[in-house]
Amino acid sequence: MSDPSEDIMRATFLALCERGYADVTMRDIAEQADRSKASLHYHYESKHGLMLAFLDHLFERFTDRVGSFDPAADDPDEFLRAFVDDVLHPPDDGDDSVRQFRTAVLEIKAQAPYDEAFRERLARFDDHITENVSAAVAAGIEAGVYRESVDPEAVAQFVLTLADGAQSRHVVAGDDPDAAMAAFEAHVDSHLLAGPEGRP
Amino acid sequence: MSDPSEDIMRATFLALCERGYADVTMRDIAEQADRSKASLHYHYESKHGLMLAFLDHLFERFTDRVGSFDPAADDPDEFLRAFVDDVLHPPDDGDDSVRQFRTAVLEIKAQAPYDEAFRERLARFDDHITENVSAAVAAGIEAGVYRESVDPEAVAQFVLTLADGAQSRHVVAGDDPDAAMAAFEAHVDSHLLAGPEGRP
Repeated sequence: MSDPSEDIMRATFLALCERGYADVTMRDIAEQADRSKASLHYHYESKHGLMLAFLDHLFERFTDRVGSFDPAADDPDEFLRAFVDDVLHPPDDGDDSVRQFRTAVLEIKAQAPYDEAFRERLARFDDHITENVSAAVAAGIEAGVYRESVDPEAVAQFVLTLADGAQSRHVVAGDDPDAAMAAFEAHVDSHLLAGPEGRP
Repeated sequence: MSDPSEDIMRATFLALCERGYADVTMRDIAEQADRSKASLHYHYESKHGLMLAFLDHLFERFTDRVGSFDPAADDPDEFLRAFVDDVLHPPDDGDDSVRQFRTAVLEIKAQAPYDEAFRERLARFDDHITENVSAAVAAGIEAGVYRESVDPEAVAQFVLTLADGAQSRHVVAGDDPDAAMAAFEAHVDSHLLAGPEGRP
């Protein structure tokens, strides 16, 4: 038998794609999971509690997908570009469900100012991005690949802005994140790289 | 007597700040405007119709605030930097109502994939930004201030991504848009400017 929480997470994903965050109900998710509403409530007390568990599940999948900087094994510049590329590009891009799902995530983000628990869950994604971008940039400076004057935190803030912007552009206008990635690459080439490639 | 539609737009703004888009009702807006619900319905058939009128009103205020490129009067580089600064910084930044209001706008954006009329209204903001950024960049290339190799549309797409990203960061984490503006200035200096300032 499959793990009930895995089934429920999958059903939550599908129900969010179909109905959006505001409209989705525990009943929708139960139906999607082929369970009774009572059995769903046995695992999760409320829609809010289920959504928090779902954000935890997403965070695990996100960190698995984008990885973490390993100073012993990773080349800082290579890691940084690949990491940001993964952050900007959602998995299975091109599939229509991705846009539907990102729309639901945008709805959840719009709840953040009113909801401490959502805010805390969303901050974990930001923290993971900030930590790994900063660590890779700092290692790049250490290795002499990036300039001493580069501020690792400012690069991380730029990545967060691009990632949120690319997500919102995708939802509102269907734009793909390639332009954001190109802007990031140009930024690294001109503002981070030391030596002949970069400006003094 | 003041213009009823101006009063209603102001009341809609305040009610959205207080309740958010999903929860706000015609009754909330009528109360905020010191009117009966019937009198509000006399002007606007439904919440959806009122929101469309409100987006039209916002668009007028937005274009008044950020302006348009005048090739006969504006210096392209000066205009571009000032225009993007205005686009990134909401009016009266620092006031708490700005974050509340941007949260409601994020909710409306999350409706865009399901709502053709919202999508069309939101696209007008994007079109205004795209047209004016592209025109200023093209004029800058023409004047020899920017490099021939610069793609005006790509710069406009970068501005849209930064603007959406800065808005989302503001809502989700309370970040101010200064980092996004600094990234844009750095991009212009390194990738647009011709001559000794820029790279070849």
